[in-house]
Amino acid sequence: MTDLIELLREGLPAEAVLTDPDVTGAYAHDMASFCEAGAPAVVVLPRTVEQVQHVCRTATALRVPVVPQGARTGLSGAANASDGCIVLSLVKMDRVLEINPVDRIAVVEPGVINAALSRAVMEKGLYYPPDPSSWEQCTIGGNIGTASGGLCCVKYGVTAEYVLGLDVVLADGRLLKTGRRTAKGVAGYDLTRLFVGSEGSLGIVVGAVLALKPAPPEHLVLAAEFPSTASACDAICRIMERGHTPSLLELMDRTSVRAVNAMGNMGLPESTEALLMAAFDTPDPASDLAAVAELCTAAGATEVVPAEDAAESDLLLQARRMTLPALEAVKGVTMIDDVCVPRSRLAEMIDGTAAIAAKYGLTIGVVAHAGDGNTHPTVCFDAGDPDESRRAGSPSTRSWLWAWSWAAPSPVNTASAS
Amino acid sequence: MTDLIELLREGLPAEAVLTDPDVTGAYAHDMASFCEAGAPAVVVLPRTVEQVQHVCRTATALRVPVVPQGARTGLSGAANASDGCIVLSLVKMDRVLEINPVDRIAVVEPGVINAALSRAVMEKGLYYPPDPSSWEQCTIGGNIGTASGGLCCVKYGVTAEYVLGLDVVLADGRLLKTGRRTAKGVAGYDLTRLFVGSEGSLGIVVGAVLALKPAPPEHLVLAAEFPSTASACDAICRIMERGHTPSLLELMDRTSVRAVNAMGNMGLPESTEALLMAAFDTPDPASDLAAVAELCTAAGATEVVPAEDAAESDLLLQARRMTLPALEAVKGVTMIDDVCVPRSRLAEMIDGTAAIAAKYGLTIGVVAHAGDGNTHPTVCFDAGDPDESRRAGSPSTRSWLWAWSWAAPSPVNTASAS
Repeated sequence: MTDLIELLREGLPAEAVLTDPDVTGAYAHDMASFCEAGAPAVVVLPRTVEQVQHVCRTATALRVPVVPQGARTGLSGAANASDGCIVLSLVKMDRVLEINPVDRIAVVEPGVINAALSRAVMEKGLYYPPDPSSWEQCTIGGNIGTASGGLCCVKYGVTAEYVLGLDVVLADGRLLKTGRRTAKGVAGYDLTRLFVGSEGSLGIVVGAVLALKPAPPEHLVLAAEFPSTASACDAICRIMERGHTPSLLELMDRTSVRAVNAMGNMGLPESTEALLMAAFDTPDPASDLAAVAELCTAAGATEVVPAEDAAESDLLLQARRMTLPALEAVKGVTMIDDVCVPRSRLAEMIDGTAAIAAKYGLTIGVVAHAGDGNTHPTVCFDAGDPDESRRAGSPSTRSWLWAWSWAAPSPVNTASAS
Repeated sequence: MTDLIELLREGLPAEAVLTDPDVTGAYAHDMASFCEAGAPAVVVLPRTVEQVQHVCRTATALRVPVVPQGARTGLSGAANASDGCIVLSLVKMDRVLEINPVDRIAVVEPGVINAALSRAVMEKGLYYPPDPSSWEQCTIGGNIGTASGGLCCVKYGVTAEYVLGLDVVLADGRLLKTGRRTAKGVAGYDLTRLFVGSEGSLGIVVGAVLALKPAPPEHLVLAAEFPSTASACDAICRIMERGHTPSLLELMDRTSVRAVNAMGNMGLPESTEALLMAAFDTPDPASDLAAVAELCTAAGATEVVPAEDAAESDLLLQARRMTLPALEAVKGVTMIDDVCVPRSRLAEMIDGTAAIAAKYGLTIGVVAHAGDGNTHPTVCFDAGDPDESRRAGSPSTRSWLWAWSWAAPSPVNTASAS
């Protein structure tokens, strides 16, 4: 242990090596519940690629595991420490090195906050779509490690779609450069994509070339109330089948709607069984929303309210973005899951979740990136109630969620971050 | 050898095992020039996954190399036989198994012709964007193996963007299922992308789940003449910098334009140094083209002609799509290359190619998917002229093209198919 710290200090400034257990303990885990976390031996905060290489070389020489971390806002436990490990926090490597409007790329260090990058490119008329809920805190490196998505996915896809090239420090300290900074490039095996979503298990991302889009027109949001999740899901199918490409298509079930009202006085309709939000960032969003409103009505919506302007739209999205903390407030603790199904089978998934909640006497709210079939069944429970905790965390509750194997050719298809 | 054929026949019908050298010789190579090809020992034409598994098991047992093939329209030599190999042609596995408009996916076998799939999904209001020049002949399996692009890439990306999941037979005959059939799915390492572009080197793709887009509105094309490639490339930079997203943005140099006129009487402007074609498939393509026309004029275009309708647009694209055969007709043989550069450095690339052509006394036409910086420098030469052949194929001519290492973090960034 003394060896480890001494060797690390040979290539890192004193303030970049944290050993006080009270301090290092704060780096033990991300925001995943129900994931084990150990006590790190040391936390390092490098500022350069060379310092990261030094850490990896040292770790390999002494056979000490390395756990890379960004902002620790992840929900998959990917950033959780193991006992005696080196936590390698990339948050000090937070520079945007280049934004190029002609080539539509940004070159960044891994510790850049998602929102900081989004705002920086916006100033140049560009758009970096991936927008996980934690976008004001999470880092691009963490987004790459967990292949983050967000509300934008239905139109713009996940983080992977925006990673053109990577600089990666391998376990032995070598620097690997993958990919490209050209718009197109298909030579060789796609190592870039192999690193995206690998949760730091293959190497430490120390730099990235990201693709950007031109900034879209301002979006407009519509909210539609449905008497059942089935009818809301029917609306989603009709919208997609008709060839619409909303910039977001989100679903909140009754539990989620009530939780948000309880927390934030958002004035969402209490009596609705399912609330659908759709947005368009097209040249004429009002006309696209009108077409979607018709499809919602045909599917049985009891009320359809298009926002009149950006302010109204933002208010609706604010309610949507409050869902997870609001569900947390219901009983104090939540266990959030992240399950994708074909959008044509969304209703089965959500109704099935309600059946499970009833069977186990649990409160499970479901909020979904419905446009791409990505649901977040969120079990709300009181950690002080041992029986409820047991039912919430019981393998049979969870195994049900994992049983949606028809969703994918592979047996399980959970998205590790949203 | 006898063993090999006998064992293959144990799991394949007689007509699926070809051994006549006059027949198997026709399967020796794809359309790449300057790539070595050997003589296959046998060609097999399986119709089922089980038959492919049988071929792989047999090959592994006898240590015989397997070369998978689609339509052999590739330009990278990926499908070239090695001496004594088994050529495994997937062209008989050509069924479209499913087209789902709600989930926007197609499930296909690898031998489906790109155009057949494109037309089948179009009938359901859907769109499969990847459109390599060979789209009327090439197979989806070949597109996956070579990570094909096409004219659509500037807006819609390459084949990789549309592959959600794969069924792959590994060398030892095991069947691996990767990926998903959901819109989103980021669990685990991205093995799907590892197989895309791997040219059959990691396994045999026997099935694919492909993502589809809603069919876009009919596109409208504009042609602009420029007095220099530099001014045409300046226009491209202005178009991209202003946030336009054309559905294609193609550049033909003077050599290409004249070759097309010589072959097809297409009436392209003979005196122009560079011809730019832009298209939009937006709700109001005429207005987008008008904005682009202004940018072309500002960059020095001497003439800008927007097509008035789909028929005129198709005629322009027909000229563009004729370029490669037209360049082949110039001197009988071509050596086509495939190089990506950042679009901001396209002018350097094209002017540099002209300088090389002058230095070596060669005719090199350049046609480019200019919107994503993907150029096809095409050396035209007379195979009956030994000195010209030598200059065309000389390492110094080619090494120049490979020297654009600034184009990518990795030393070389050529696209293996377009």
